Amino acid sequence: MSKLGVLYGVGVGPGDPGLITFNAFRVLKAVPVIAMPDSGREGDSVALTVVRGALDEGLLDKKEILKLYLPMTKEAGSLRRARLDATRVIAECLKEGLDVAFITLGDPLFYSTFSYLVPLLKEILPEAGVATVSGVTSITAASASIGAPLTEADESVAVVPATYGMEEIRNALEHHDTVVLMKINKVLDGVLNLLGEMGLTGMAVYIGRASWPGEEIVRDVESLRGRKVDYFSMMIIRKGA
Amino acid sequence: MSKLGVLYGVGVGPGDPGLITFNAFRVLKAVPVIAMPDSGREGDSVALTVVRGALDEGLLDKKEILKLYLPMTKEAGSLRRARLDATRVIAECLKEGLDVAFITLGDPLFYSTFSYLVPLLKEILPEAGVATVSGVTSITAASASIGAPLTEADESVAVVPATYGMEEIRNALEHHDTVVLMKINKVLDGVLNLLGEMGLTGMAVYIGRASWPGEEIVRDVESLRGRKVDYFSMMIIRKGA
Repeated sequence: MSKLGVLYGVGVGPGDPGLITFNAFRVLKAVPVIAMPDSGREGDSVALTVVRGALDEGLLDKKEILKLYLPMTKEAGSLRRARLDATRVIAECLKEGLDVAFITLGDPLFYSTFSYLVPLLKEILPEAGVATVSGVTSITAASASIGAPLTEADESVAVVPATYGMEEIRNALEHHDTVVLMKINKVLDGVLNLLGEMGLTGMAVYIGRASWPGEEIVRDVESLRGRKVDYFSMMIIRKGA
Repeated sequence: MSKLGVLYGVGVGPGDPGLITFNAFRVLKAVPVIAMPDSGREGDSVALTVVRGALDEGLLDKKEILKLYLPMTKEAGSLRRARLDATRVIAECLKEGLDVAFITLGDPLFYSTFSYLVPLLKEILPEAGVATVSGVTSITAASASIGAPLTEADESVAVVPATYGMEEIRNALEHHDTVVLMKINKVLDGVLNLLGEMGLTGMAVYIGRASWPGEEIVRDVESLRGRKVDYFSMMIIRKGA
């Protein structure tokens, strides 16, 4: 039997190709197969664009690109089936001795699909090696975009998907110096109401597509009310600001 | 008057020189002056070691290295004086038209001294340009070291310095899927008591010096009781684990 390939989870950073790491570059250059989630969301292709920008001209075209269907659904059965199918496709490559880089925007262990596939791979092909290459996350990239610290000294920070529920967002805002609300697009007006009630509106900043060409920063967050905002958006509320 | 230099806050990543970004590398290669905090802590020299490892042989020796005395004290007066003095030294270089890279482990806006200096520079030399180069943080590097996601899907994560107080740590553990306790060395036994009481001991992992050569991972956290642990250590408690 030939030697098994290794599965690499590779964080390509927040979107600016200059924020890719040397380790990510080396792995991406070396592997014959690049796997990426295909969820129907734009972020998937953005990750591939970052990789294309980082590699030498034409190098990406010599690699096999595996687009793995991983839908954004809450339906547990179809979710598990899709993940299992995606993992099987990766496992086939590894069995052929091919190393696979699964690319992800940001970091592979911070809100990425990669961490769902690893335990499934351990079931299907327990002897396969898995390695993670950390990346710059969108939350510190967003801090750089707005030119303010995410957190200093003895402060605490909570990162909460805005879909977590208003009571949990309120708790986070009460207990932490900085709160990052991810996926703010889904509950924007409710969050604006809560910030107003808590007297925190002036401390909130909206960031869409941090570090991407289409980056958007809005400091007057009330002006966003009623607007349909980007999926790749967050709000940073820094109480000490 | 000559053109002012630019101050760059450069995150060099968690400690592995391979986790430096292309943008950080470009800035470090180009600037004539590298500034670093000198707090008496080992982390300062680790950041410089990472830079030395990333740059071509001998290149660092051709640059001016500014070691800025920034003590780890709680005394507000001497803290402000030290920060002001450090900022003045940087401002002098900028006035001579020299670009300065202030290096920091991890990210310059995530628990770094850089964010204290920026507002002081705006006071002293308001027209100076400031830019931030984001870096990989220790918290995702630590997740990679233990091979587990920091956070998935709709989960929330809180990052809390262990010095924040036990009631705040309890609140974070009650309300978030993952809690990262920074600076765990100061309050280790108290945290172990709290984890035991809340039934979370088995979900905690200790990580010292994530991604450094001397990295240490301890999954049986109770075995650390009474031990003097590293300053560069954290504990990750993942409730879904």
